[in-house]
Formats: sequence, C-alpha cells, structure tokens
Amino acid sequence: MSTPSLSQPTPEQLEELRSLLGDPRKVVTGQATREHHSHDFSYHPPRLPEAVVYPESTADVQAVLEWATRHRVAVVPFGVGSSLEGHTVPLAGGISLDMTRMDEILEVRPEDFLVRVQPGLTRSRLNQRLARDGLFFPVDPGADATIGGMIANNASGTNAVRYGAMKHQVLGLEVVLAGGRVIRTGSRAVKSSAGYNLTALFVGSEGTLGVITEAILRVYPLPEFVLAARASFPSVEAAARTAAALIRAGVPVARVELVDAATIRAVNGYKGTRYPERPTLFLEFAGTEPAVREEVALAQELAALEEGVDFTFETDAAAREKLWEARHQAALAIAAASPGRRMMSTDVCVPISQLPASIQFARQVAEEHGLEAAVLGHVGDGNYHVIFMVDPEDPQEVARAAAVNERIVRDALARGGTCTGEHGVGMGKVKYLAAEHGDEAMALMRSIKAMLDPLGILNPGKVVAPPAAS
Amino acid sequence: MSTPSLSQPTPEQLEELRSLLGDPRKVVTGQATREHHSHDFSYHPPRLPEAVVYPESTADVQAVLEWATRHRVAVVPFGVGSSLEGHTVPLAGGISLDMTRMDEILEVRPEDFLVRVQPGLTRSRLNQRLARDGLFFPVDPGADATIGGMIANNASGTNAVRYGAMKHQVLGLEVVLAGGRVIRTGSRAVKSSAGYNLTALFVGSEGTLGVITEAILRVYPLPEFVLAARASFPSVEAAARTAAALIRAGVPVARVELVDAATIRAVNGYKGTRYPERPTLFLEFAGTEPAVREEVALAQELAALEEGVDFTFETDAAAREKLWEARHQAALAIAAASPGRRMMSTDVCVPISQLPASIQFARQVAEEHGLEAAVLGHVGDGNYHVIFMVDPEDPQEVARAAAVNERIVRDALARGGTCTGEHGVGMGKVKYLAAEHGDEAMALMRSIKAMLDPLGILNPGKVVAPPAAS
Repeated sequence: MSTPSLSQPTPEQLEELRSLLGDPRKVVTGQATREHHSHDFSYHPPRLPEAVVYPESTADVQAVLEWATRHRVAVVPFGVGSSLEGHTVPLAGGISLDMTRMDEILEVRPEDFLVRVQPGLTRSRLNQRLARDGLFFPVDPGADATIGGMIANNASGTNAVRYGAMKHQVLGLEVVLAGGRVIRTGSRAVKSSAGYNLTALFVGSEGTLGVITEAILRVYPLPEFVLAARASFPSVEAAARTAAALIRAGVPVARVELVDAATIRAVNGYKGTRYPERPTLFLEFAGTEPAVREEVALAQELAALEEGVDFTFETDAAAREKLWEARHQAALAIAAASPGRRMMSTDVCVPISQLPASIQFARQVAEEHGLEAAVLGHVGDGNYHVIFMVDPEDPQEVARAAAVNERIVRDALARGGTCTGEHGVGMGKVKYLAAEHGDEAMALMRSIKAMLDPLGILNPGKVVAPPAAS
Repeated sequence: MSTPSLSQPTPEQLEELRSLLGDPRKVVTGQATREHHSHDFSYHPPRLPEAVVYPESTADVQAVLEWATRHRVAVVPFGVGSSLEGHTVPLAGGISLDMTRMDEILEVRPEDFLVRVQPGLTRSRLNQRLARDGLFFPVDPGADATIGGMIANNASGTNAVRYGAMKHQVLGLEVVLAGGRVIRTGSRAVKSSAGYNLTALFVGSEGTLGVITEAILRVYPLPEFVLAARASFPSVEAAARTAAALIRAGVPVARVELVDAATIRAVNGYKGTRYPERPTLFLEFAGTEPAVREEVALAQELAALEEGVDFTFETDAAAREKLWEARHQAALAIAAASPGRRMMSTDVCVPISQLPASIQFARQVAEEHGLEAAVLGHVGDGNYHVIFMVDPEDPQEVARAAAVNERIVRDALARGGTCTGEHGVGMGKVKYLAAEHGDEAMALMRSIKAMLDPLGILNPGKVVAPPAAS
C-alpha cells in the first residue's frame, strides 16, 4: 500500500479554517496548547501538532475534515489525553482535534435505559447526570476519560466482568468520515440484525476511520445493594487463582481487581490509606441483599483456600467510594511515586485459566531484567497490567522495559490471549498485531483503512497504517 | 456499482469440483437434494441451486471458493434452512454449500467458559455436550439452527434479554473469503482492543462476506435455581406493558416472552397443552433461590397492576422444559395450523418504552387489512413478531401481508427501532435498509461488500447487493 504524503498546514490554510469555522478561537496555535496536545499519559515521545482545533458541532467537524482532506493535513482526535499507547500523539504533525467542547448530553431516556451524548463528555459528568434517574454508565477506565475516547479505544475497566466493554454499550454512532460526509450507524433498539455491524467497526478504531460526533449508549439501573470487600494474599498468583476460582464458580461478581504489594504501597503513599501492603483482591458484589450475602460467603471460602486473610467488607457508600477511588487512582499513585518518569503498561488479556501462569511469567521476566514493576488488573476478565515507570530520556531503560513488555505479549499470545485487553493499539502495539491476527486479518484491516481513509489523514501511524511522511 | 455477471456451473466444472474435493459424494445434483436447498422456512419463492456441495473441512471450503471464483459461480451457505427472510434461497442459482458435515465440537474449555466449534453443529447438540460440564449456550432461536447459521444471522431468541445476542457470544472466527483465502479473527481472550473488530464484521453478514468455518464461543454456567412462570392478561398491550415495567424495575429476568391468544390456541392444538387462550407472558427467573423468589414476587405485583391472572410457577425441570418447548415451537404450531401456507413474520425491535404502542399499531393495521395475525416475541428486548400464514400462490394475499409488514416496519423505524431484531435481512428486508440506515451507511456497507466479494459470488441478492444476473 503506498502512503500518500501529508502536508503541514500553512498559516493561510489555518486562516481559511478559522473562517470556515466562523470563530478564530476554534483554531489555536499557542505553544502551551500545542504542548498539551503533543502526548498522552504514557512514555511515548511527544510531537507537537501545528494547531489545535476545537469543533463545537458536527458541522464544524465536517468542515475540518473537508478542509484537511483538501490540504492533505493529518487530523488526530483528542479527548483528555489519557490513553496509554500514544494514541493522541500527532505523529505526522497536522492538527489535534480537541473534542471537549462537544460535551453535551443530548437525550436521557430512563425508560429505555439509553442516552445520546456528544463525544467530549467525560464519564464522571455522564454518571452525575444519570444518578438523578437511578442509573449509571458502567465502563470505567482509570482516568476520567471522554466518552468519545472510550469508544475510539473500546475501553473497559473494573465493571467489564459484569457489564462488558465499551463495544457492548454502544447502540449507535454518528461519525464524520474523511472528506467530511456524516454516517449514522445503529439505532435505539437494543438488538438488530439489519445489515453489517458498522457500529462495531468504529468502536476501537482509535480515530483512524472517522471522527465520532455522537453516540447512543446503554445505561443501567444502580444496583439495589452493593458490598465491597478486600482480602490480601501470600502471593499475586494466589490472588489470581482466587479470582479465577470465583469466575469458575459462576459467582456474578461485579468487580474483581488484583493489586500487588508495590501498588498498594504507592496507593497508601498517595491516598494516605493504610491497606496491608500485600497482594490484594478488591471485590464488589451487587444485587439484592440476600444474593449478595450468599456470593460474599462463597468468595470468602474460596479466598481462604488460597490463604487469603484480612477479608474486610464495606457496605457504607463512603467507605466503598474510598476503596474504589484508591483502586482507580492506582496508576496515578504509581506515577506520583516516580516523579520525572513516564508510564509503560502492558495490557495482555488471556483466557482466565491461563491468568496465574501468565502473571507469574510476567513477574519472573521483569525480575530477570532487574525491573521494578507494579502489577494490577481486571483479573475476572483475564486482563492485567504490569506497569514500569521509565525515564524517557534513558534509551537503555526504555529498551529494557520494552523487551520485557514484548516477552509478556508473546507469552500471552501463545496462551490464546491478546496483546491488548483495553488500552488499544495506538503506536505502541502496532508491531504485535500481525503476530496476533495473522497476515490475512492484517490485510483486511489495511483494506478497511484504505477504503475509509484513502489519503491516510486520520490519526496516521496508529493501529494498522504506517506513519505518513510529513 | 456494476454487478459482474455470474455463470451456472457446467457439468465439466462440477466434475472438476468433485475431483478437487477428492470425493464425488461431496457434490450432489439430485432433484430432491436441490429442492431441499431451494428455500428456507418462509414464504419467499424457492429457486433450485444447480448443485449442493458438502464440504468436510476448511480446505474443502477453500477449494470450493477458489473454484467458484474462477468460474464466477454463486455460493450460498446452508445450515438447516430455518431462516425466515429467504437467506438460503440461491437467487442466482450456482451452488448451495451445505455445512452440516462440518459439525464437530473441536475444543471445550469449561474453566475458560469457551468452546471452539464447526459451523454445521446444531445448538441442541452443543448444549447436550455442554451439560456434562454444567454449562450451556444461551442463544436459542426457535429452530434447532446450526451455529454457523446463527452467527451469519446474528440470531438471538428468548435468552437475549439476559445474555445478549449471537454477536455477544462470538470471540473469534475462522472464515474462508471469496477466492479461497482463510482469515482468523479474535482470540480466546474475553476482551480485546487489538485493532478493528473483524469478528463483528462477519457476525450478521449472512454469508455475503465469507463462509464461516470455525467459531470460538462464550458459554455460561447453568444457573443454580431456575423458576418458570406464566400469567395471562386482558390484552396483548397489557402484557407488553408488564414486560416493559419488569425491565424498568431492573429485574434481571432470564426470559420474558409474549404470546397472544391466537398463538396459544395454535400451541394447545399442536402440543396438546391446555394453556388459557389469552395473551400470556412466559417468564423465567434464574440465579440463587432467594434472589429468584424475590424477583418473582415483584413480577407478580407488576403483573397484577395490569390485571394479569393465572400466575403459575413451574420449578420442576420437566414442567419448565414443557413450557419452554411450547414457546419455542410456537412458530411451528402456527405453521401446522395452516397447512399449505408459508410463514411471513415481521421482526421489528423498538425501544422498550415504545413496545406497547408498536404492538398496538401492528395489530390495528393487520385488522384494517382483514389479516389474521399471531403476535409473539422477545418483549424484554422490545422485539416481537407478527406472523401471517400466506398462500405463496396467491399474489394478492402475499401483497396484502407485505403491505402490512411494511407499515409495521416504517412505524418501528419512526420510533427509533430497527426493521429486524434477529431474523436478519436476507432478501425480504433489503428494501428497508436505506430507510433505516441512510445513504452514507448503505454506501459503506456496499463498499465493504465490494471489497470482500468483488465478483459478487457470495450469497448474491442478500443484505446489500442486488441479485446478480444469471
């Protein structure tokens, strides 16, 4: 596949864009703004976009993509920049398309358990609104990401074991395609077999196939009774085995999260908590009280078989909130404990029976390479993260961590798993896709990319496409 | 889009195919076999394939598609022929590709809650095997369809309200593409964000993008305690309102099925049951016993508000089985009550709040046109069927039913719904797709079809492609 070459926008072209958007404040070229849009939350090296554009409507996004197509300018959609594989780094320059001014909740239909929203809305703001109707949106990546970013990434988080990932929540989309046309997919029906599943094609496409401007999402009733619990274990593997046993026993656990001792230490330091600094399972059970009580009793038995101790319950909402906030901020806590360093995180997901061995392998390889690593993850899905804080200025250190990362991925693929359960491909996992999917699947992905974005202006260098020359 | 013209296979070409497949019994041209593969379960007019081919391996399917591409011969995959929109009718002649000899269970991994199977396996055989491990596969269209057909159709059924449709169960696929190359999608991990979701592209593609030769599916633990119940109501709308209220109350009902008086009469006649011949909800609750008891009590209260009576429980496995068999065979019962006639079924799915009004509209339109119609459906998802038994030899009768069908679809689309919740597009709903999705989405679907099947040999005339000349 030949890659058409891209151009950087000239000052005249940016002036034209300002006039197309009818408001000069929608196109920003200040250094601080460009720097904010040059990176994500990870170790991947930053690159400045030439300008940052703030659309306020679908028509604005259409105008931008029509303009960018005409001038062969790269467009990289941007939410809050919390991705972990360099998704939002404008590898080929061009413009960063900041979606955060399109953050409205357009429709709330409690009786139909659905909402229609703009992509720049954050998940916390969506949940604040939904709570008024006794509802919530379950997908919860660590960061307070935007809905658009979460769709583009097929994000998941701690609730996926019960509610599924982002792809299970999106009923329909409005997407602006390269060139500026608008496509609508799906409907407000919860089921459909009406033609090819175009919604699923855009979920997880990381801004490389189009720019999401609206989404219809499923939402859920807040459970009647919720109980959070934690237990600590003699080893990470014992905790992982307990999680696998819970799933095998058919317990409809709402959350089951593994956090290792290093991460607990970081969390205690960051949040002022006093959790025992040992490998820990954070659990949540939700439903009717009698059902929850039964599930918890079973979980406690299974934990005891693996010498799980300090089994602690929290039914009080504030205590539960605090516990889950600690878990959600684990990545921030780890980052805070290593000032000046940037995060590299593995994200393999394996069949649940392979989880203890996969984690054991990962810890062993990290140790062999003399790397300090934190382990945490969504172990009910077989998905976990090994987190290294690296000095991006030290190429040897980055290379060492990358080598460990690669061995963990290859091992996970051999176990029937995937290189990324929820973080996505971005620029960091492009190199693993062929090993995971094979040449035929890669060829089809590239054909889809070429069909929808023949000039390669949409987030170049990510998922399947080579970075375009600039 | 120009449609390349297709050819009928010559006797020499069929002889070549026999030799490619290494066994003459894999290519059958007898009249009875061809007739069996000329239609599905619906009113759509039959057409004979020139030959029926029985592959026994992925390599066989590759050989067939390589051969068919070379000779421009149409290929229509066939499971048990239980589709309801003419999916398996070989509109352009060519060959019917009967997948039923590829019916093996290749892998059962109880600890990972997954299986790997061939497409010709029926759902009942899969469930027989899974029961040995305390597991089951939830997707249950009325017929004992093949897994391949169910994937191709994105089938669902009575369990979808709790477990989702086919697209939620398929973790990975092996698909033979036009030309004969093999593509593998997905993995054994329950979550992945590794590139474009190719699995979702093939689920629901109705044999128009490739031929499925293997699937990795999620399976589930059999619930600990199951309770079936039924209640009858003064009107279909009252029953539908009760179903909507149950979902709104957040009851995790396992099944909630609406059956109208006409259908109950047909079932009683067909199965020898004695259910009260009134609009009825068939319900199922599953989980731990205390949780189920609580849910049922709430359901009973909600039913009473709509004057639901005869609330009857069945906890005994045999009685439950009988109840659900009656529901599953409702379509067969309706068919049996009209010998010589063929089935036309609507399949709209609407937001749950719109369900009572949608059903009311449908019944009114049928009445206006003097048509006898049975109503039944998966009302927990907002999906229901209006079934007409028509004389396919009477064009006026078919046209009258088609006109009613069309009005029901247009009304459902106006309510934010879809023309097909689970039956698929086939040849019968091609005409509604543009109204549902708009021109841009249709153009993208056609581009996908042209990309994967440039000669148009795969199930021509279905989903998006015009029937090829023959």
